Amino acid sequence: MNNNIILHLNRDINTPLYIQLYNELKVLIENESIQKGEKLPSIRSLAKKLDVNNVTIVSAYKLLEQEGYVYSKKGSGTYVKENTEDLHFGYFEDENMELMTNGILSMSEDSINFASVSPTPELFPVEDFKNVLIEALDRDKGNAFVYPEINGYAPLRESISHFLYENYSIDVSSSQIQIISGGQQGIDLIAKTLIQPGDYVLLENPTYSGAVAAFKSRGANIISIPMEEDGINLEELKKNIKTYHPKFLYAMPCYQSPTTYSYSDEKKLEIIDLAYENNLYIIEDDFLSDLSYGDNRLPLKSIDKYDQVIYIKSFSKILMPGLRIGFLTAPKKLLKDIVKAKHTTDITSSGFIQRAFDLYLRKGYWKDHIQKIKLDYSEKYILLLSQIKKLKSHGISFIEPSGGLSLWLKLPKDIDSIELYNECMKNNVIVVPGKIFFIDEKSEYTNYIRLSFGSVTKEQIAKGIDIIDSSILNLKGEKNEDTKYIPLV
Amino acid sequence: MNNNIILHLNRDINTPLYIQLYNELKVLIENESIQKGEKLPSIRSLAKKLDVNNVTIVSAYKLLEQEGYVYSKKGSGTYVKENTEDLHFGYFEDENMELMTNGILSMSEDSINFASVSPTPELFPVEDFKNVLIEALDRDKGNAFVYPEINGYAPLRESISHFLYENYSIDVSSSQIQIISGGQQGIDLIAKTLIQPGDYVLLENPTYSGAVAAFKSRGANIISIPMEEDGINLEELKKNIKTYHPKFLYAMPCYQSPTTYSYSDEKKLEIIDLAYENNLYIIEDDFLSDLSYGDNRLPLKSIDKYDQVIYIKSFSKILMPGLRIGFLTAPKKLLKDIVKAKHTTDITSSGFIQRAFDLYLRKGYWKDHIQKIKLDYSEKYILLLSQIKKLKSHGISFIEPSGGLSLWLKLPKDIDSIELYNECMKNNVIVVPGKIFFIDEKSEYTNYIRLSFGSVTKEQIAKGIDIIDSSILNLKGEKNEDTKYIPLV
Repeated sequence: MNNNIILHLNRDINTPLYIQLYNELKVLIENESIQKGEKLPSIRSLAKKLDVNNVTIVSAYKLLEQEGYVYSKKGSGTYVKENTEDLHFGYFEDENMELMTNGILSMSEDSINFASVSPTPELFPVEDFKNVLIEALDRDKGNAFVYPEINGYAPLRESISHFLYENYSIDVSSSQIQIISGGQQGIDLIAKTLIQPGDYVLLENPTYSGAVAAFKSRGANIISIPMEEDGINLEELKKNIKTYHPKFLYAMPCYQSPTTYSYSDEKKLEIIDLAYENNLYIIEDDFLSDLSYGDNRLPLKSIDKYDQVIYIKSFSKILMPGLRIGFLTAPKKLLKDIVKAKHTTDITSSGFIQRAFDLYLRKGYWKDHIQKIKLDYSEKYILLLSQIKKLKSHGISFIEPSGGLSLWLKLPKDIDSIELYNECMKNNVIVVPGKIFFIDEKSEYTNYIRLSFGSVTKEQIAKGIDIIDSSILNLKGEKNEDTKYIPLV
Repeated sequence: MNNNIILHLNRDINTPLYIQLYNELKVLIENESIQKGEKLPSIRSLAKKLDVNNVTIVSAYKLLEQEGYVYSKKGSGTYVKENTEDLHFGYFEDENMELMTNGILSMSEDSINFASVSPTPELFPVEDFKNVLIEALDRDKGNAFVYPEINGYAPLRESISHFLYENYSIDVSSSQIQIISGGQQGIDLIAKTLIQPGDYVLLENPTYSGAVAAFKSRGANIISIPMEEDGINLEELKKNIKTYHPKFLYAMPCYQSPTTYSYSDEKKLEIIDLAYENNLYIIEDDFLSDLSYGDNRLPLKSIDKYDQVIYIKSFSKILMPGLRIGFLTAPKKLLKDIVKAKHTTDITSSGFIQRAFDLYLRKGYWKDHIQKIKLDYSEKYILLLSQIKKLKSHGISFIEPSGGLSLWLKLPKDIDSIELYNECMKNNVIVVPGKIFFIDEKSEYTNYIRLSFGSVTKEQIAKGIDIIDSSILNLKGEKNEDTKYIPLV
């Protein structure tokens, strides 16, 4: 960094010094006063020059790394990225937003979409839901549109309390339930309730970028813990709890996204004890546990004897995304603060939708629906497993999740996931390069692709895998054996 | 403060020092290590003792004051409150939450509710809305429940663009519109987009506590500017812009809540120029401008030639609260960041409700509805004006707002608003003591009550004013002339 560059830190304002430093460095990188590939000053030298603690510099550099401006080389230092568009969550968000919201609008009509975990409209229980909407309106008239309670329409909270006990052996009273407008809002409410700027939070790595964004927006420091085939790495978890005294661990114990891995029962039990011993909350994000194609999987919450788990349930992936309804269960000591956060966020979720959804649960439509989509998805899952054998010859491997809506394919070193993503895209097949789910670029192997079957038809599965197969061959510079050389006559 | 009390500030973590200090002092006050009525150390002495800047102490004390733990006496110092339940927003929120959500549930059946600005169910256009809900379902089927775009269902944004131009002379393209789940979410999204911890924001005083809570939750420093009969005090506004370089001014230019005052045209023009010159955003919260009983009032946004006004429109008070739908218009340079904030908050608002509301606007139901409720409310308004004359003999005065859903009654010094509130409550009449809307207890006169007619019937208006009249007489220890002395025979 040019010695003439002067950094201004203002101790007379309340903005933390590391954020001030981050903002200054960001501007200097953006306007190329600090050039691409350039090394930033060492932590010690900059701390001395600015007369601040080392931790201020570390935090600013860490934030720059999280935001994708710099990367750190072990034992060497921190460098400005050559291509700041690359691999950070900003990049992912835009892509993901396109895919998740407009879905196929951003691709050509005939694309095969292995990127989406959302169900498609023909699986929605539209008629059943229309019935309960009309019934709620005819029964409640204008009252269907008054403000419901902030924590949610009381009869719906009752229904959900029963629903939890029947389906997941979770025993929580209706008073501990907070209705939310989808899973992301649950994450946002928890962030508001628990995070003060500078607090540490733990996340699985790789993980869901929407959670990372919500926590960072509150000024949290993100600590990543590697995911393994049977759940989060416990040694790393313990070490980081001790070092950082984090506020919570955000986790997806059933069919984790993107890895599809589920926690073993042993790990679940140990995590519950760890949470209790260290006064650590666990945010369990459950959006898929209903979709098991083998043994049923019970949420972590079902063994939460110390009331340390905040269980967030989204219905977007297993009912209909456009409903925007879900719930969370709150530990008693957090209940009041979560209600306050909900009030500050959007007062209440739609009372009308809550009344209709309550009827939907009471009439037992839910069970029929889950049976129907489980059947449909398990057929797709089995088909995908059989088709994907074609790719094993390329050295691609994966764990069979026996549930959920995705496969997490580990690529060999000679197939780069971003290159494969681009090559598939050329052929109208959309896959998600695994790198975009990783919080940071530590030592873990990040060369994966995620293949989801929420939005593909059975016909597309077979065709799509063939295209991925030939895309790999193209990347390797090999001809596809099936190519036909037709004489030009 | 006892000299043995030791305060620990940790410079090795990222939590700002003033927040650390605030948290420590809060605990000491709560566990009464620092006693009620006790004086806190002077700013200079504590800054010296802790080896921090004065501004750290000032900020911590200010936060304690905002949260209702301490109060400051001019020229004397900062003192712990005797009754920490009193008069701060925490107190207000709970009360308000009760009233606004369950409404009459928290009072006896026969209460006269002058506290609520929400319409009652019999004014809701339930049949029209049922029609468009069914039409949207029959037309779009499963597509009614897919994720809409994050910024909102495109045809609805088109409808709203027309709606804005026709109704309020606001010229904004559909691409600048963000659909939100009610006005409070608009406030939350802006807070997320613009506020970093320690930033300063300006608010009218008194104001809406839901906005104060959202801004404080992001770590903002709240600066209050007095409201006057023709709008915010411009001298104070200019002075504070210069001192604090605030991020924005949050304002309600039409029928401000709770004062009911509207900004004069001159003040509006000057504020637009001030915003431009100082790169200050104005958040215009408009939830009542449609309810004018005299001349129509145009929003500030209609004269916003520099694209500095963020216009938030809630339909909760003029259509149906339980819909949870509204929109905001974003300056072009903020559009992307607001969409990101929406994504982090709840991905999207319900696509189904958006589709139905789009049809509602396109079919022209809106105009009929507004005409109907304006007629109904203007009758109540006129009735209330005629009844309230009874109170003038007590020295109660107010400005006629000619619109909205409330009157803001200035009480003479000998009638305390909290006492009057309690006295009325005993007689099953609910009024709101004005003090709870004030951000801080500066020199302004805060002895008001707010009387709202959103949820009272015409019969209740006459009866309710009589009860307020006799409650005042009781407070003054005077007999009501109308009391009949019946002989016990």
